[in-house]
Amino acid sequence: MNFVDIIIKKRDGGKLTHEEITFFVQGVTDGSLPDYQISSLLMAILLKGMDAEETAHLTMEMANSGGMFDLSAVEGVKVDKHSTGGVADTTTLILAPLVASVGVPVVKMSGRGLGFSGGTIDKLESIPGFRVDVSEEEALRYGRESGIVLMSQTDDLTPADKKLYALRDVTGTVDSIPLIAASIMSKKIAAGADGIVLDVKCGSGAFMKDMESAEKLATTMAAMGRHVGRKVTAVISGMDQPLGMYIGNSLEVIEAIEVLKGNVEGDLLEVSLTLGANMLLLAGRVETEEEGKALLRENIRNGKGLAKFKELLEQQGGDTGIIENYELLPVSAAKLEVKAKEAGFITRMDTAVIGRASQETGAGRMFKGQPLDFSAGIVMKKRLGDAVATDETLAIVYSESEEKCRSAAAFLQKAIMITKEQAEELPPLIWKIIRQED
Amino acid sequence: MNFVDIIIKKRDGGKLTHEEITFFVQGVTDGSLPDYQISSLLMAILLKGMDAEETAHLTMEMANSGGMFDLSAVEGVKVDKHSTGGVADTTTLILAPLVASVGVPVVKMSGRGLGFSGGTIDKLESIPGFRVDVSEEEALRYGRESGIVLMSQTDDLTPADKKLYALRDVTGTVDSIPLIAASIMSKKIAAGADGIVLDVKCGSGAFMKDMESAEKLATTMAAMGRHVGRKVTAVISGMDQPLGMYIGNSLEVIEAIEVLKGNVEGDLLEVSLTLGANMLLLAGRVETEEEGKALLRENIRNGKGLAKFKELLEQQGGDTGIIENYELLPVSAAKLEVKAKEAGFITRMDTAVIGRASQETGAGRMFKGQPLDFSAGIVMKKRLGDAVATDETLAIVYSESEEKCRSAAAFLQKAIMITKEQAEELPPLIWKIIRQED
Repeated sequence: MNFVDIIIKKRDGGKLTHEEITFFVQGVTDGSLPDYQISSLLMAILLKGMDAEETAHLTMEMANSGGMFDLSAVEGVKVDKHSTGGVADTTTLILAPLVASVGVPVVKMSGRGLGFSGGTIDKLESIPGFRVDVSEEEALRYGRESGIVLMSQTDDLTPADKKLYALRDVTGTVDSIPLIAASIMSKKIAAGADGIVLDVKCGSGAFMKDMESAEKLATTMAAMGRHVGRKVTAVISGMDQPLGMYIGNSLEVIEAIEVLKGNVEGDLLEVSLTLGANMLLLAGRVETEEEGKALLRENIRNGKGLAKFKELLEQQGGDTGIIENYELLPVSAAKLEVKAKEAGFITRMDTAVIGRASQETGAGRMFKGQPLDFSAGIVMKKRLGDAVATDETLAIVYSESEEKCRSAAAFLQKAIMITKEQAEELPPLIWKIIRQED
Repeated sequence: MNFVDIIIKKRDGGKLTHEEITFFVQGVTDGSLPDYQISSLLMAILLKGMDAEETAHLTMEMANSGGMFDLSAVEGVKVDKHSTGGVADTTTLILAPLVASVGVPVVKMSGRGLGFSGGTIDKLESIPGFRVDVSEEEALRYGRESGIVLMSQTDDLTPADKKLYALRDVTGTVDSIPLIAASIMSKKIAAGADGIVLDVKCGSGAFMKDMESAEKLATTMAAMGRHVGRKVTAVISGMDQPLGMYIGNSLEVIEAIEVLKGNVEGDLLEVSLTLGANMLLLAGRVETEEEGKALLRENIRNGKGLAKFKELLEQQGGDTGIIENYELLPVSAAKLEVKAKEAGFITRMDTAVIGRASQETGAGRMFKGQPLDFSAGIVMKKRLGDAVATDETLAIVYSESEEKCRSAAAFLQKAIMITKEQAEELPPLIWKIIRQED
């Protein structure tokens, strides 16, 4: 097979065969294809697209390019969840213990944050003692015993995805729906998921800025489910403001615990329940989303969700004392209140810029591998649509120095738009749920 | 400047600035840009295009990427000619001495053949003793003394083009009009041309298979003239059959000499006169194309063209005896007549396949650097529209072995289509001449 012919076929809008895609992914994995040919094909794919069948073939070849996590030893339907990334998106820390607490096992690999987007692994590492590096053997044991594992991706999973992701980053080929979909789905499949609930974020603090591209990605992934033999549900949720009120690592752990204690209502809880209920649906644990939400709410009320979270901490070496005493988590040295310069209504938040402010505090990464300040971050005091008085507090910034606090505060002032008139309509929280057709 | 931003800009259909193109070409030339980023941009350019201004900037940056031939020491307007390549396309060997013989200097760099397309340098090297490697100093002296130099491209010219050309070949990014145009024009400009006559071949034995793409390339290059400060005329000529009757290296030298002797009329002469007359027009030597053609025809009749060809051979060490005795040129050991299997009319020739037959004899290259059999080739006996009887000779194949002759003959049988009915219309020879507007 001549790879140049494959490039030309895609360049001219052709459909790649399974064999051609296999040849491509194997060449990426074993290093036999030079980077300049790979990047040329990636650009052709970005500009000419791939249909559902091609994307499914690409996904499965990428999933099979390295080790595959075999979760069959853990009883039940294993449902994973993936978010395309956002600000104050702490849903995993809430829904994983809740879903596990109703008897559906959650053995979940997560990633680190980059850019405006946070990562579950970083948040977990802010808990003193918590161990995110878990072997396959341990994961299976934990999965059987507690029904919950939150861990970082093992090294040998999806080497083709790692290679392609790194190349896309430096060749202007990140923003391709089929390439994004294949990257996400291949990791989830290699991690052993039977079913996958996708949280496709849409808005000013998401990779997908508009409904059209979010829906396209969600539809692509839901449609792929049938081709790859996995149950897939895609939820499109709003990211036009931080999802929770706490942004940062230890700060988001605190908010998750508060939600599990039943002390917090609002958007973060609502999205966590929606995603969690859809996981229960895919696992066959409930018949309707409403039934699932009720079951999860009940386990907040009766404390079983929080107990499962504590079990998770114990299992992976985390200090369980943090649940009752947040001061056992890293605490920042400096803080600064960000105040409204004028009275009015909050009509818009540039959420990516709020993520940028969070990077400024030290809570988010500018570049891969950058160490984080786990104590740093932002506590938001207002949401879209809220009325504010002059000098009223909009947010509190936490960091190691006053200088960093001021720098982050400047970004926040820029990100939050206050107008005299109330906005006519607020963006919805759950835009759409796309379920795979059988 | 961040190169990924440049890739993304072009990917999204944006127009690159002069500064961005300079950054690109410099990065290609000095090796600071990795191949995988270059190929990604090349694919984006192929799929999203470049306008006349971008293409002109690219051309000039590529022309300036290495040494520039300075022909100002040679008096007069230096007009170069370039063909996009075809089969039995021997025009340079005919028009260069003719144009020089009427007092317009021709200092011309040429290339080698590849694929179905022959190259002037190979043909010249089939002449015993002829030296194609000429230094800049010699070229200037010859240009002043004889007014004619035919030479291979010097090593230090357009390194950016060499690099991009090699990369395009292996990344599926050859067929881009702006990239083809910039490659051709940059070489001609670096070689010192004041004016350029382009012969854009169109048909079954050309890179441009249809009129639409040929016209697009011709228009692109003619439009570029104004931007790059060169006079440009683009002739679109037919390549639906071999232009001359002789295909091969020493064989094409023989046909060129026959034309210069006034022994041959037909398409090869007609295209040579058209291109030559347009060179005279750009040089300001004549007022009309007809005047130019008459002047060139006169110098065939009076032998001045042939005398200039002899002067060229003497100057560069070639055996002038070949002009009267073709047996001094390499002669092949085996030959085979290809005969019509049925009676009828020749209605179509797949000229690229005829070029493939020529490769089979040893006259053409399958891959870069492949040594040629200078004596090998094909003499065509029929042209489109001709009537043929069963067993009448269609062509004679020359090669070093009967096996190679048979192999080439099989391609020829496949390439020449004989039908009972005469074709309603034959393709024109000169499709269109596009002149730069002032």
